[in-house]
Amino acid sequence: MNGDLVPADVATVSVRDRGFMYGDGAFETLRVYGGDPFEWAAHRDRLRRTAETLGFGEAVPDDLRERVDATLAANDLDEAYCKVSVTRGVQPGKLTPDSDVDPTVVVYVAPLGRGGVDGDPVWDGPATVQTVRTRRPPAESLPADAKTHNYLPGILARLELRRAATDDFAADEAVMRTTDDDLAEGATSNLFFVDGGTLKTPSDDLPILPGVTRSAAIELAESEGFSVRTGRYTLDDLRDADEVFLTNSTWEIRPVTSVDGIDVSVGPMTRLLSRLFDERVEREHYGGGATDGDAPTEE
Amino acid sequence: MNGDLVPADVATVSVRDRGFMYGDGAFETLRVYGGDPFEWAAHRDRLRRTAETLGFGEAVPDDLRERVDATLAANDLDEAYCKVSVTRGVQPGKLTPDSDVDPTVVVYVAPLGRGGVDGDPVWDGPATVQTVRTRRPPAESLPADAKTHNYLPGILARLELRRAATDDFAADEAVMRTTDDDLAEGATSNLFFVDGGTLKTPSDDLPILPGVTRSAAIELAESEGFSVRTGRYTLDDLRDADEVFLTNSTWEIRPVTSVDGIDVSVGPMTRLLSRLFDERVEREHYGGGATDGDAPTEE
Repeated sequence: MNGDLVPADVATVSVRDRGFMYGDGAFETLRVYGGDPFEWAAHRDRLRRTAETLGFGEAVPDDLRERVDATLAANDLDEAYCKVSVTRGVQPGKLTPDSDVDPTVVVYVAPLGRGGVDGDPVWDGPATVQTVRTRRPPAESLPADAKTHNYLPGILARLELRRAATDDFAADEAVMRTTDDDLAEGATSNLFFVDGGTLKTPSDDLPILPGVTRSAAIELAESEGFSVRTGRYTLDDLRDADEVFLTNSTWEIRPVTSVDGIDVSVGPMTRLLSRLFDERVEREHYGGGATDGDAPTEE
Repeated sequence: MNGDLVPADVATVSVRDRGFMYGDGAFETLRVYGGDPFEWAAHRDRLRRTAETLGFGEAVPDDLRERVDATLAANDLDEAYCKVSVTRGVQPGKLTPDSDVDPTVVVYVAPLGRGGVDGDPVWDGPATVQTVRTRRPPAESLPADAKTHNYLPGILARLELRRAATDDFAADEAVMRTTDDDLAEGATSNLFFVDGGTLKTPSDDLPILPGVTRSAAIELAESEGFSVRTGRYTLDDLRDADEVFLTNSTWEIRPVTSVDGIDVSVGPMTRLLSRLFDERVEREHYGGGATDGDAPTEE
């Protein structure tokens, strides 16, 4: 909390904090593997960009990484979920933001399992997804590439799943479209599908939040020589896909086995990218997982 | 705070409160005149409707009015600004809301001047307004009639004013249009204009938050026999108007003297409705302000 270490149970903000009153804040969620945040620079840069969009970029502290490290150390955590929030803090009682910002900075960590080739995914199984009525807000209302504390559209999308749930079935993720009916993304995930050997994902020209794991998945696919297309797609494109998967920082690459009740199989592209992702994490965070056929060392 | 009286400076919520993390909460701001909240039932009902839209209607406490009264009494306030928030509180770490809700309920009060015919408006002068690029989110992304802690579109709209401000001039209110270019509302206010003797305001079929003071202004105009139309209007309609005013709970009826740099005069309809509003408050909250020519009593 603002640079101090406090137990999560007593970490609080003023009811007059603009983060609480208006969702007037930026955040990132990321995963820590072997003591190191995955793609720290990408998350830090996006947090700063979000804060700049909200007009308080300069209030993001320069020592965020040190704060994350200190919070992990205080909790003796090498494998963790981490959430970083920077809000506009408390200001005099007007909606118009004051340019003088004393931000509220929260670094929150919690234990999570190991990643990499020896890790287990955080999810219980592949995801079932359902398309919902709630639409991703257009960029002219809420800048899409800003990750802010205004997260109600995603919550309303998930509420639709809860309301549609039966005793036997509740979908895991809600897929939102844009107001123009283009596929956008899940409530907390980016969406990928495979069509005739080509990996497809909604373009970041659309109002989506282009995730850090989305970029990693695209890079991995391209590094294997697969064709990757970003564009505008319809619900039918998704329903007709050969494979579907979701990405986010904690799920990593999560296969999808059902779209609107239509079965989809977990195919080779999803399995391969998942494996490549785990190997990348193993190599970069645990110093192992040779991918080029080297024999494992005997130690 | 959740039924306890605490000084505003130490009124806090957990950083894990969904109100803070996601803006996952409902709120109302209202004005208290002579110890009584203006249109309490309308605010209470809208708060409950907002919470129902967010799926936690049953978590809104039944004794909200008693909490407001107790908070006013503890602060010895008869003339006050009052804000009531109900959030989904702290839940296990998932975006999907749990149906078991332990809400966070905040009643915040602060001193404000007297209303009615002997009162002074809270604003320094009439408003200057400017139309902005930020659009009111469509209802399919964020239900328009829900007053939630997701308030960034209004903040981004006001930021546009700040960025456009010169040393000499900063507009007071940002007017947002819908994504279809229809006039919608101000960042914290509803918009009215007069065209050839008819009072016009954007329809609540559009994505606007239909304010309690908006309803009061419409009622007052109709009670005087004026023609009131709600519909779809363009920016040109506003710029060509004979009179323009804004309404919200604290501003009440605030005249506008400039739209996008074009002067507008404060005309008779605005003055009359303002006066009628003050007389209504005087009559209902201070037991005075006879409007039918009765001589004042001598006490």
